[in-house]
Amino acid sequence: ALPSSPGTASAPRSSPSPRTSFPSLASLCFFSAGIEFRFREVPVGGAALDSTGVPLPDDTLAAAKESDAILLGAIGGYKWDANEKHLKPETGLLQLRAGLGVFANLRPATVLPQLVDSSTLKKEVAEGVDIMVVRELTGGIYFGKPRGFGSNDRGEDIGFNTEVYAASEIDRIARVAFEVARKRRGKLCSVDKANVLEASMLWRKRVTGLASEFPDVELSHMYVDNAAMQLIRNPKQFDTIVTNNIFGDILSDEASMLTGSIGMLPSASIGDLGPGLFEPIHGSAPDIAGQDKANPLATVLSAAMLLRYGLGEEEAAKRIEAAVINTLNRGFRTGDIFSGGTTLVGCKQMGEEVLRSV
Amino acid sequence: ALPSSPGTASAPRSSPSPRTSFPSLASLCFFSAGIEFRFREVPVGGAALDSTGVPLPDDTLAAAKESDAILLGAIGGYKWDANEKHLKPETGLLQLRAGLGVFANLRPATVLPQLVDSSTLKKEVAEGVDIMVVRELTGGIYFGKPRGFGSNDRGEDIGFNTEVYAASEIDRIARVAFEVARKRRGKLCSVDKANVLEASMLWRKRVTGLASEFPDVELSHMYVDNAAMQLIRNPKQFDTIVTNNIFGDILSDEASMLTGSIGMLPSASIGDLGPGLFEPIHGSAPDIAGQDKANPLATVLSAAMLLRYGLGEEEAAKRIEAAVINTLNRGFRTGDIFSGGTTLVGCKQMGEEVLRSV
Ligand SMILES: CC(C)[C@H](C(=O)O)[C@@H](O)C(=O)O
Ligand SMILES: CC(C)[C@H](C(=O)O)[C@@H](O)C(=O)O
Repeated sequence: ALPSSPGTASAPRSSPSPRTSFPSLASLCFFSAGIEFRFREVPVGGAALDSTGVPLPDDTLAAAKESDAILLGAIGGYKWDANEKHLKPETGLLQLRAGLGVFANLRPATVLPQLVDSSTLKKEVAEGVDIMVVRELTGGIYFGKPRGFGSNDRGEDIGFNTEVYAASEIDRIARVAFEVARKRRGKLCSVDKANVLEASMLWRKRVTGLASEFPDVELSHMYVDNAAMQLIRNPKQFDTIVTNNIFGDILSDEASMLTGSIGMLPSASIGDLGPGLFEPIHGSAPDIAGQDKANPLATVLSAAMLLRYGLGEEEAAKRIEAAVINTLNRGFRTGDIFSGGTTLVGCKQMGEEVLRSV
Repeated sequence: ALPSSPGTASAPRSSPSPRTSFPSLASLCFFSAGIEFRFREVPVGGAALDSTGVPLPDDTLAAAKESDAILLGAIGGYKWDANEKHLKPETGLLQLRAGLGVFANLRPATVLPQLVDSSTLKKEVAEGVDIMVVRELTGGIYFGKPRGFGSNDRGEDIGFNTEVYAASEIDRIARVAFEVARKRRGKLCSVDKANVLEASMLWRKRVTGLASEFPDVELSHMYVDNAAMQLIRNPKQFDTIVTNNIFGDILSDEASMLTGSIGMLPSASIGDLGPGLFEPIHGSAPDIAGQDKANPLATVLSAAMLLRYGLGEEEAAKRIEAAVINTLNRGFRTGDIFSGGTTLVGCKQMGEEVLRSV
């Protein structure tokens, strides 16, 4: 029943006031749990390159903006790997994030008791890990200008990018992170490289400056190299982490692997206005494409985040999450989380078992 | 017998032709294993700030340049944490690296059988891990210009840095990495973010272009976020890793923690000409300063790397390494690597036990 497929952006709509601007041809409407959903599936990334020649067609961005929330599949594949920058699937994803203004990327890394054995960490280190990485998503070195290629004064080729943050960009992501920490265990760790980078020095100054507005949250700071170590040494010391775009890219992937199961982890990207973007943390896994092996649970759980953060439908979100836990309790596992004594299933059957577990 | 102490750069000299330019007051000369050493201890970082007001005095850089090799202690501490950029201990270290032109930073992460239990990774994942991270050390976002603070068109404060690589900077670090891989298990993984950053696209292009000169080395590429995951998922897939300055900072710390014992890990920084710089990977650990708790073995092993890569004294390097292994086999452990059934000792005693183990 979940409308996501790799390389597509899907736009669920919630009642009570469905908009009518979607062309009927690609839309699908159904009613569940007292909510009327209207779906539209539009291409982005590789799928868009194949069908339209660009990684983010104008129609896709327009459809996304008109939606109440967006569920996104993964966007890359070998076929487009050698493309030039403006024709990379990844460029489409970055344009979509920027176009929607979703500056806050929430990436939970939670070790489920059912899956603690899939972690490569010792049981006593992994068990109980519950981290939320809040990554800045529309600024920093991903978008900073100037960027490009050129030559230096010796006539050599150079490639360059700009890491840049403005005070307001830091403040708004820090506020989201303080709010998230407040609803969790009240601890926020801001990660930067303020002993070397000016962009990080401003980051640390602004985050520190906001702390007095959140007296119930305990703020600490950590250098990114140390954070990469501490995540392995003692991940339970972390509750909420806030960091810039590139450090967040690296640390959230690292944190997710502590759980042993990147195929399980959803994410939410939200802005001040407009719809949020919900996607699994994992990529498109081109090595197993079409083999019915992928773990669909990260996408299913992204739909739960969509219901919670995108549509305010907490009850429906909980039902999906409970169904996933139930499926795991019934022993079903895709290859990435398989271990002795459980039942190995493919992507399709896993989806069906989740439906049966509702 | 090792002349390093935190916050100082020491300059060992080897015979047969000791230079005479060192003032006698701070120099120390002794003869061991057929090598005549002459030491000079000069301040950098916090120690230099306290005694001279700058983090890298001209005399220190001059003394370092005159040496055959440099053994460096750790450089920071709470006392100087709030200093402005040009008065940070870290700035002194960066100036020393740049001043010496040591562009290649070799950081081994090896899980010793004696210490496999100190890793937070499961035994079967940790055991046998033997990775060499080759980090570019004098370029990229650490040194790129423009950098600094300013304001944007809305009058807001901004902080910015430039990630930039020139073709020749990439080529020379890649060559070192190919050579290192060739002497190890013949596998080189180049880590970048070429799906987003132009600086990484040039990196990947240049590294790929050199591969044909090293037909005996198997080259692969990986995105940095994936590398941060794979180091935890299956670290044994890696032999030699080459990457830029900031990614190398993060990944080498992460890799070192796989071994469970950052207090054990040395590093070597070398250039084309002039002396190499040898230092433990760990920082100054201000939280335990003066408590006789620090693990001296990373510094001792850095002296072994100094003998091997800095002075070409392979036999002497091996003797130090054997003494360290011997000390571990005799059961001595500092707090960071302590586990049941071994003998807990302080920093001083650990040093003495190494001497007894030669
Ligand atoms: C595909 C890539 C552009 C993207 C990123 O770097 O942001 C991905 O790694 C992610 O974390 O969502
Ligand atoms: C102290 C700091 C400037 C340094 C770096 O970032 O290079 C340290 O983390 C290291 O890795 O040697």
